[in-house]
Amino acid sequence: MNSKNENLAMLCDFYEFTMGNGYLKNNLHKKNVYFDVFFRNIPDDGGFAIAAGLQQVIEYIKDLHFDKEDIEYFRSKNMFSEDFLEYLADFKFTGDIYAVPEGTCIFPREPIMTIKAPAIEAQILETFILLTLNHQSLIATKANRIVRAAQGRPVLEFGSRRAQGADGAVKGARAAYIGGCAGTACTLTDELYQVPASGTMAHAWVQMFDSEYEAFKAYCEIYPHNAVLLVDTYNTLKSGVPNAIRVFKEMLVPQGITNFAIRLDSGDISYLSKQARKMLDEAGLTNCKIVASNALDEHLIRDLLMQGAKVDVFGVGERMITSKSAPVFGGVYKLVAIENENGEITPKIKLSENISKITNPHFKKVYRLYDKETGKAIADELCLYNETIDTTKEHTIFDPNATWKQKTLTNFTARELQVPIFKNGECVYESPSIEEIKAYCQKEVETLWDEVKRFENPHRYYVDLSQKLWDIKKELCVKNAMKSK
Amino acid sequence: MNSKNENLAMLCDFYEFTMGNGYLKNNLHKKNVYFDVFFRNIPDDGGFAIAAGLQQVIEYIKDLHFDKEDIEYFRSKNMFSEDFLEYLADFKFTGDIYAVPEGTCIFPREPIMTIKAPAIEAQILETFILLTLNHQSLIATKANRIVRAAQGRPVLEFGSRRAQGADGAVKGARAAYIGGCAGTACTLTDELYQVPASGTMAHAWVQMFDSEYEAFKAYCEIYPHNAVLLVDTYNTLKSGVPNAIRVFKEMLVPQGITNFAIRLDSGDISYLSKQARKMLDEAGLTNCKIVASNALDEHLIRDLLMQGAKVDVFGVGERMITSKSAPVFGGVYKLVAIENENGEITPKIKLSENISKITNPHFKKVYRLYDKETGKAIADELCLYNETIDTTKEHTIFDPNATWKQKTLTNFTARELQVPIFKNGECVYESPSIEEIKAYCQKEVETLWDEVKRFENPHRYYVDLSQKLWDIKKELCVKNAMKSK
Repeated sequence: MNSKNENLAMLCDFYEFTMGNGYLKNNLHKKNVYFDVFFRNIPDDGGFAIAAGLQQVIEYIKDLHFDKEDIEYFRSKNMFSEDFLEYLADFKFTGDIYAVPEGTCIFPREPIMTIKAPAIEAQILETFILLTLNHQSLIATKANRIVRAAQGRPVLEFGSRRAQGADGAVKGARAAYIGGCAGTACTLTDELYQVPASGTMAHAWVQMFDSEYEAFKAYCEIYPHNAVLLVDTYNTLKSGVPNAIRVFKEMLVPQGITNFAIRLDSGDISYLSKQARKMLDEAGLTNCKIVASNALDEHLIRDLLMQGAKVDVFGVGERMITSKSAPVFGGVYKLVAIENENGEITPKIKLSENISKITNPHFKKVYRLYDKETGKAIADELCLYNETIDTTKEHTIFDPNATWKQKTLTNFTARELQVPIFKNGECVYESPSIEEIKAYCQKEVETLWDEVKRFENPHRYYVDLSQKLWDIKKELCVKNAMKSK
Repeated sequence: MNSKNENLAMLCDFYEFTMGNGYLKNNLHKKNVYFDVFFRNIPDDGGFAIAAGLQQVIEYIKDLHFDKEDIEYFRSKNMFSEDFLEYLADFKFTGDIYAVPEGTCIFPREPIMTIKAPAIEAQILETFILLTLNHQSLIATKANRIVRAAQGRPVLEFGSRRAQGADGAVKGARAAYIGGCAGTACTLTDELYQVPASGTMAHAWVQMFDSEYEAFKAYCEIYPHNAVLLVDTYNTLKSGVPNAIRVFKEMLVPQGITNFAIRLDSGDISYLSKQARKMLDEAGLTNCKIVASNALDEHLIRDLLMQGAKVDVFGVGERMITSKSAPVFGGVYKLVAIENENGEITPKIKLSENISKITNPHFKKVYRLYDKETGKAIADELCLYNETIDTTKEHTIFDPNATWKQKTLTNFTARELQVPIFKNGECVYESPSIEEIKAYCQKEVETLWDEVKRFENPHRYYVDLSQKLWDIKKELCVKNAMKSK
C-alpha cells in the first residue's frame, strides 16, 4: 500500500478541482451551497436500506488537507491558478453537515446527509462522501437481508478474499456487522473497529498432516475450546464426519467440553447437514454444532432452512462482501439550494425527462412518523428546514406522485432523522460504539412492518413531501422548464 | 482513514493465524509448501480474463510486518503461544514467488501465481494476495470487454463514487487502465499510478450560474482548451446543445480552437447523440466531439453503436468499477505440494464431489503455445516444474477432461507464463510502467482468436495438462479416494 492512503483528499473526481478553480475565478467560492445525498433505488428491489459509513466520512473530513506533493501535482497540470493552489494548501472544511445516524433504515429520495458549505468545499467532499456511504450502506443492507433469512442463527462474514480491494474487505466487514452479522473472519476489522474476528482451519491444515484424523487431533489438542473441524477435504460423510466424531469423543468429551462444531464448505448443504446431524446425534454428540459456508446468500439460506437443513451457523463470503446480486448503491450528491450574502436561501432543482430523476429542492428536514400504538413507522415526510410537525394535531400526508392519495394521522409521533454532525467545520457528533450502532440498527428494523421487509415485491414505504415543499418543487419545475425553451 | 492502512499484514483471515500457531506447535512451520493461485470461472462467461494487481502484491510483501499493537491484539485473544507471537514480531517473508505479469491473458485452472514458502508464511499471505489479484483482475477483465465494445473510441473510467470503498476506486481505476481505458476521473489514481485523470463539470456548475449560457461561457473563459460542456441540466436539445453551440461559436471558434465537446449524461444516448450531432454539424461544428455517460457497459455500448449513435468518447462508471454484472473474481489459493527436509516434493491434491473443483497437484510450469505462422495462441499446457517443451519436435496435447481429444502441433513456439517475482524473500522483479503494462495487455489480447473474444458463448480456450502431470493427478485421485473410505 502507500502512505498516500492516509490522506484521501485526492480521492476525488478531477472535475471537482476544475470546478473549484472556476468558482474561485468567478468569485463564487464563498457562496454557501446546500447539497443533499440521497439514493433512488433500493438494492435487490428490497423494501428499505440501512445507512452506514458516517464514521469514516467524519474521520476523512477531520483530516482533510492537501499536502505539498498534491499541490505540485496540480501545478504540473498547467490548468489551475496559483490562487486556487494557495486555497487548496490552506484548505479546511468550514461548513455544516447533518446526517442520519449509522444503522438507520433509509428510503429512496430522502436526504441521508445534507452539506451546507462554501461551494468549493462542498464540491471537494462529493466523491469520498458518496463512495463511503454508498459502499457501507450497500453492504449493511445486504447483510441485513442475509441475517434476516437466517432466522436468528448467527451469520459470520467470510468474504475478504473476494472483496473489491482492501477497503472493500475491512470496511465491508464493519458494515456487515452493523447490518446484523455476528462476526467476521477479517482480523484487521477486529483490530480497527472491534468487530469480533474468529477462524479455525482451511483445507491446507488437513492436507499438511499425514491423515485427516491426525489433523483433527492436532487441532483439538491446541484449541480444545475452539474446535470447528472442516470435514470436506476428502469425503464429508465417509471420512470427515466420522473422523471428527472420533476425535471429539476421544479428546473433548472426556474433558467435559461440549461447544465443538464441524464445518461444511462444499457439496449440498441441505443433504450433507441432515446426514451429518444424524451421524452426530447417533454418536451422542447432539450438542455439536454445524457451520455451513459455500456460495450462500439470503435466497439460498431461506431455501435451505425451508428444506430442513440442520445448520446452526452460516458463514457468508463473496455474495455478501460484494453484494453480488446488486453490487451498486446509487447514492447521488445534488445541489438543492444556494444562499446569498444576506443568508437568504434560493432553492435549486435539477430537471430530467425521467420524473423520478427530478430532485427535491431546498434545505430540508426529514421526519419519520410513527404510529403511537404499534410503534411502527408509517411514513417519512420531507419538510422545509424551518417547518415543524405538530404531533398534537391531526396531520395529513399525501403521495407526491399521486397527490389524491392522502392519509390523515391522529395518534402519532414524529422523529427528525438527521442530526448535526459538523457545525462551522467542527465535529459536534460523537460516533456511538459499533455495538451500539448494531443494536440501534436492529431496533430500527423492528419498527418496520413485515410487509416492507419482504424480499420479493415488498410494500413501498411512503416518503412524502410537506405541502410547502411540494408547492416549491412544482413552481421550480414550471419555471425551469420555461427557462430552457 | 487510518494509519493502520499502511501496514496491511492484519488484513488477513483469522484462521491463517490459528493455523500458523498450530503449525509452530506441531513443528510444521519450517516445512516448505507450494500454493497455487488460480480461478475456475471467467466473469460474465467471457472467453478469457486479464491478470492485474501484481505490483500491489509486491509492495505488500516487501512491507509485510507485524507492529507491537498487532502482537498485543493477538495476545489479548488468549489463544496464541508466546512462541508464535515472537515469530510474528520477527516475521519476514523468506520464500519464492512466481507469477504471470500484469496484463497477461489468463484462463481457468492455470496457476497465475505460485508461492513456495515455509507453511506459516505462505498461509499469512493468502488473504491479501487473493483479494488484490481478484479485485484488479476483475476490473481489468471487465474494462477490456467495455473497451473492445467501443471499437477504438476512448473509454474513460468515471466510477469512483460507486466503487466498493476507497481501494475499489483507486486500484480499480488502475486496473481499468491496464484493461484498456484511456483515463480516469480519479485524481488519486493519477497521482499514485500515473493513470491520466481528467474532468470538466458537474450539473452543480451549471446550477451555480444564473443561466446555462452564462455557466458555459464562464467555463470556456477559464478552460478554452478543455471545454466539455454538460448539456443536460435543463433540456438537452432545447437548451443545452443550443447554448453550447452559441458559446463555442462566440468564444472558441474565433480563437481557432477546435477540440471542444459536449457531454450527454442522461436520456436516450442514441437519439440525443444523433440529434445533437445534426445540430452541431448544421452549425458548422463538425469537429465538436460528443462524450456520453449514463449506466453504460459493453452491451449497451455495442447496441448504441449498432444503432448509429454518434458518440466519440464513452464515460463508464458503476458498471465497470464494480463489474456490476459479475462482481466477483473467484481466485483461490490451494496447497499443491509439500517439500521434505531433503528437498523432495510431494504433490498434494484437494478432492471434491464436483470434478471441476479437484485441484491440479504439484509444483508446476505454465506454457503458452503459439502457432508460428499466425502468432495466435493455441493452448496453454501445465507441466511439472522440471519439464520443458521441445518446440523443435512434434508435440501432442490433449484435453484433460476428454483425453481422446488430441492435437499434434508442429510449427509452434512456447512461452513460459510465470516469471520469478521473489527469490528467498528478495524481490527479483521490476514492475513495468503502467503504460508498458497497458501496451502489453493490448498485445496479449491480439494473440487470441476472435472466437475466444466473443462476449456471448465464446470458444473455450484449452488449458491442458502434460502427460506426466495428468498421470500424477489420476494417481492421487485414486489414492486419496481410497484413503477416505
